[in-house]
Amino acid sequence: MNTPQASEVWIRLQKELPQWVEESRAQCGEGKVASYIPELAKAPHRALGIQIMNGSGASIAAGDAAIPFTMQSISKVFTLLLALMDNGEAAVFDKVGMEPTGDNFNSMLKLELVQPGIPFNPLINAGAIVISSLIAGARMEEKSDRVLQFFRKLAANDFLEVNEAVYQSEAASADLNRSMAYFLKDNGVLKGKVDEVLDVYFRHCSINVTCADLARMALVLAFDGTDPITGERHIPRRYVQIAKTFMVTCGMYNASGEFAIEVGMPAKSGVAGGILTLVPGRYGIGVVGPALNPKGNSIAGVDLLETLSQRLDWSLF
Amino acid sequence: MNTPQASEVWIRLQKELPQWVEESRAQCGEGKVASYIPELAKAPHRALGIQIMNGSGASIAAGDAAIPFTMQSISKVFTLLLALMDNGEAAVFDKVGMEPTGDNFNSMLKLELVQPGIPFNPLINAGAIVISSLIAGARMEEKSDRVLQFFRKLAANDFLEVNEAVYQSEAASADLNRSMAYFLKDNGVLKGKVDEVLDVYFRHCSINVTCADLARMALVLAFDGTDPITGERHIPRRYVQIAKTFMVTCGMYNASGEFAIEVGMPAKSGVAGGILTLVPGRYGIGVVGPALNPKGNSIAGVDLLETLSQRLDWSLF
Amino acid sequence: MNTPQASEVWIRLQKELPQWVEESRAQCGEGKVASYIPELAKAPHRALGIQIMNGSGASIAAGDAAIPFTMQSISKVFTLLLALMDNGEAAVFDKVGMEPTGDNFNSMLKLELVQPGIPFNPLINAGAIVISSLIAGARMEEKSDRVLQFFRKLAANDFLEVNEAVYQSEAASADLNRSMAYFLKDNGVLKGKVDEVLDVYFRHCSINVTCADLARMALVLAFDGTDPITGERHIPRRYVQIAKTFMVTCGMYNASGEFAIEVGMPAKSGVAGGILTLVPGRYGIGVVGPALNPKGNSIAGVDLLETLSQRLDWSLF
Amino acid sequence: MNTPQASEVWIRLQKELPQWVEESRAQCGEGKVASYIPELAKAPHRALGIQIMNGSGASIAAGDAAIPFTMQSISKVFTLLLALMDNGEAAVFDKVGMEPTGDNFNSMLKLELVQPGIPFNPLINAGAIVISSLIAGARMEEKSDRVLQFFRKLAANDFLEVNEAVYQSEAASADLNRSMAYFLKDNGVLKGKVDEVLDVYFRHCSINVTCADLARMALVLAFDGTDPITGERHIPRRYVQIAKTFMVTCGMYNASGEFAIEVGMPAKSGVAGGILTLVPGRYGIGVVGPALNPKGNSIAGVDLLETLSQRLDWSLF
Repeated sequence: MNTPQASEVWIRLQKELPQWVEESRAQCGEGKVASYIPELAKAPHRALGIQIMNGSGASIAAGDAAIPFTMQSISKVFTLLLALMDNGEAAVFDKVGMEPTGDNFNSMLKLELVQPGIPFNPLINAGAIVISSLIAGARMEEKSDRVLQFFRKLAANDFLEVNEAVYQSEAASADLNRSMAYFLKDNGVLKGKVDEVLDVYFRHCSINVTCADLARMALVLAFDGTDPITGERHIPRRYVQIAKTFMVTCGMYNASGEFAIEVGMPAKSGVAGGILTLVPGRYGIGVVGPALNPKGNSIAGVDLLETLSQRLDWSLF
Repeated sequence: MNTPQASEVWIRLQKELPQWVEESRAQCGEGKVASYIPELAKAPHRALGIQIMNGSGASIAAGDAAIPFTMQSISKVFTLLLALMDNGEAAVFDKVGMEPTGDNFNSMLKLELVQPGIPFNPLINAGAIVISSLIAGARMEEKSDRVLQFFRKLAANDFLEVNEAVYQSEAASADLNRSMAYFLKDNGVLKGKVDEVLDVYFRHCSINVTCADLARMALVLAFDGTDPITGERHIPRRYVQIAKTFMVTCGMYNASGEFAIEVGMPAKSGVAGGILTLVPGRYGIGVVGPALNPKGNSIAGVDLLETLSQRLDWSLF
Repeated sequence: MNTPQASEVWIRLQKELPQWVEESRAQCGEGKVASYIPELAKAPHRALGIQIMNGSGASIAAGDAAIPFTMQSISKVFTLLLALMDNGEAAVFDKVGMEPTGDNFNSMLKLELVQPGIPFNPLINAGAIVISSLIAGARMEEKSDRVLQFFRKLAANDFLEVNEAVYQSEAASADLNRSMAYFLKDNGVLKGKVDEVLDVYFRHCSINVTCADLARMALVLAFDGTDPITGERHIPRRYVQIAKTFMVTCGMYNASGEFAIEVGMPAKSGVAGGILTLVPGRYGIGVVGPALNPKGNSIAGVDLLETLSQRLDWSLF
Repeated sequence: MNTPQASEVWIRLQKELPQWVEESRAQCGEGKVASYIPELAKAPHRALGIQIMNGSGASIAAGDAAIPFTMQSISKVFTLLLALMDNGEAAVFDKVGMEPTGDNFNSMLKLELVQPGIPFNPLINAGAIVISSLIAGARMEEKSDRVLQFFRKLAANDFLEVNEAVYQSEAASADLNRSMAYFLKDNGVLKGKVDEVLDVYFRHCSINVTCADLARMALVLAFDGTDPITGERHIPRRYVQIAKTFMVTCGMYNASGEFAIEVGMPAKSGVAGGILTLVPGRYGIGVVGPALNPKGNSIAGVDLLETLSQRLDWSLF
């Protein structure tokens, strides 16, 4: 691709990013903050922030990049990676499929119809619950702790913690996930005790981060599993490739196809308004904007990424 | 990416491609030639061929690259492009969606459930039928002729023709497509006479090609809409980007997700055993292998592309 | 059952039926006249009429019993009977099932899921279209004529005719039925040309009747296939038993279960507002009330039948 | 109906029933004993028994009428009756629908699609679980005890007990029912703790009976809620009417439509091989035959009831 020089892009970003954030922030009014649990409903409706980090560790932040939020579904990318490292490809894809689904993210319909009854992919709820069950560890505390340590290492932030209020709230309104988990257990796809598996799942969804944390985690993916700042390899390249592919085909709920057309960057969103994305070999990016569009993605965040992709030619395609 | 130099790859391909073809050909025994129409069932069960063309117009062919076959679903990529050029993005995506679907390619279930009743994407049958209805032209003969001329131009081959026997055969066993088309018409998505729209559709699916034709057509996509040999621009870059994105998310029926993980190249397959794929900025590739896997893709062709992608690091991800 | 003497019931009906009609007519305001074809939309919104005929041929009519309307789905009961007489039970139930379905009457979802792909029962559209294909006759004109003659005989009315305006209107807005028919043809369930089968189907749905006609046709069913007035046997008893069973389990679209609970009489409704029902061994009943409830049944007609069933203890159960 | 005199029927039954049982027993070889829990798999594969009781309390038994078995789904008819007596019609049908469904009895698909998310009817698993939640009682022990006392009273048998081995076995393999219950809870249809509701449900499914018990319970339904032997009224007539209607439209899983056509008697089957049925105003009938057909009904039991219905003209229709 005849993309501009990295240094030119960086200078342009420093200059224009704040303005682009303000332009996209105008979208917030059309969106809705997630309210299925009270804790999420407290998020600031008009917030929009972004942090972009390059391979030298330099960062550009704009807007409300400093506000904390829970990872929610963004965590599914990283538990998938840990499960792959714990079990290998074959064992993981014996339990979850590789296919995107255009359906609503909570749909049980698909769960039932796909043969032989395994979740379509590891990024829908059903798939992510199965992935949680595959994390190594003798007891659920150990599993949850291993997830947290892995996330801390990738974010280079030893202070990452589970947001206990969100975790309690999630666990208390979990009937649909519990229903899904028992369905998977009945199908023989989910091993272990449902309540313990769900506990691991709710905990990793409830880890608090900022845009800086997402940017650093994304940077490791952008550099194929190696932290470019420390030079440390955290994840085998093949697993990063798998994760990035899923981010393209299934990362944005049932708007993944549209996002691939309009933005074309590997990304994963969460209902707290976060989006983790990246430019391969160049940047790790974290975005937050709690007001969601009807598909469950940050309405202003998606708009901002469209701007970035179109003006800077960041689509993979 | 630390990919090897183009010249090294080319030399390696010249040396090893014939051997790789023979290794993958062993898969043919596990596959089944499409037999829903008698004409397709005549294809040679053990055939496997490939042609790779670079931007200078040089080609490497191996195996049974010279056998003719009909484009079938591969043609959907190019009618989408023509419909985009005829109508613009907004008008096209008013009638078809952008989301992949993990369902079987013939499923009417999805057709019914998606809101507001439009096909999930332009590469499933229902979507491609709608796309056929959007090709400009006063009468169906004119529409079909415009499609043929467009394909000839992209393939740089004035001798491309509809295979009349296959076309007749398709048209005569069209009850399911007819059912789908009337359903779309009832939903207000399909305009025009069902029989005429289907005629355009069956004709473009029945165009005869060889691997060389597919490679040349793919080359235009690999160079963002410009034929690198003649320097002529055939398609706006944005539309090529759209087409390549759909090839990644929906190009291989309900094995698109798996293909993205295992191969990671934009590709489109057809039930006659063809696969069109590409390496951006480098190569256009045509593959043929009529024996299909249960998902409807060339079983040996997919295997060969896995080999190429893994050994030459051709995944986008 | 400790039901009152027939003569007492008859006297009570003569006295109270007009009042009950007026009470139920108040429901009309809540309903909607079918409008998917212009001809149906012309029906009088507040009309409600009923005619009850006993085995001696005496009748009691009340309200707007004299207005003409088309049979629509009510005709499906009688084409089923004719198809059984033409082909026998085994041949008919090889092509249509016996199971009720709680789904919307137009749903194609069920059509696809039921194994091995045959319609759930002969009273849903898909099933009735298959039944139309089973009517004996060399050409479609002959089939349609045999249906009309059979209906005339049962109604003891040589003047029954197809309402040409409604027929033309139905045939012109038939895309969904055409879609269904091609789906059935693709499945191998429907034999013959789709357009000819649908022509037979639309014609029998468009036959004009009054409440008196429905009452007389229902009387034949109430007396197990014999016209009690002439003593002539028109239908074997076993086939009448089959028809009455379907009327109980599937006669009122996806409100059949509720109607069985609240009314408990074998009945079949049509979207023009007609309902044909009966008291076994006693009465044939025709009702008309064009304003429909959301399930597609006459809103005031259902209310009137609830009154009759509850006050006169007419439930089968 | 010109049915034979009751006394003639009784004499004929005494003479011929044993022979009819032996004729139907030949079907057992085609069936399969339920094996999803080990306790059920122990049932005798070739057993077939029946007991018919008339309003004077006289009984005719034939075949293996004395073997004990658990009620399973047959109990759903009686918990529905108790829930109606505890809550009234309006409160019950606010939580469960009235429509039959042609789907497999375990399907969650239907559960999801029906608006507004309530189970189709009280005899499918999802509906029966909701009904269990509606039984009055401060704690689950009290609810379970009230169910047992109600069943004992109807069966006039103070020795009815829960089969603890079956109950434990059911409770231990309950993941699918648990999944369904959490789905219902998420929808707001199910109140209370899932585990407690399921405990009530599994207990009433596990009550041990013989054909004599079923015949006596059915007799109460045949006499509209009054035990004809003691003259005691146990259930309001309207509720019995509701129960009998559901038995006709939904009593035999997704073969209810076919059973209505071929037998035409209100009936409810269970996976332990029991069938409870009746002739209104005349007989209560209990059948047992553990070998099941693919729809989950006693294969020989259904055959025997077809014989009885056809030879003695017992269809309602």
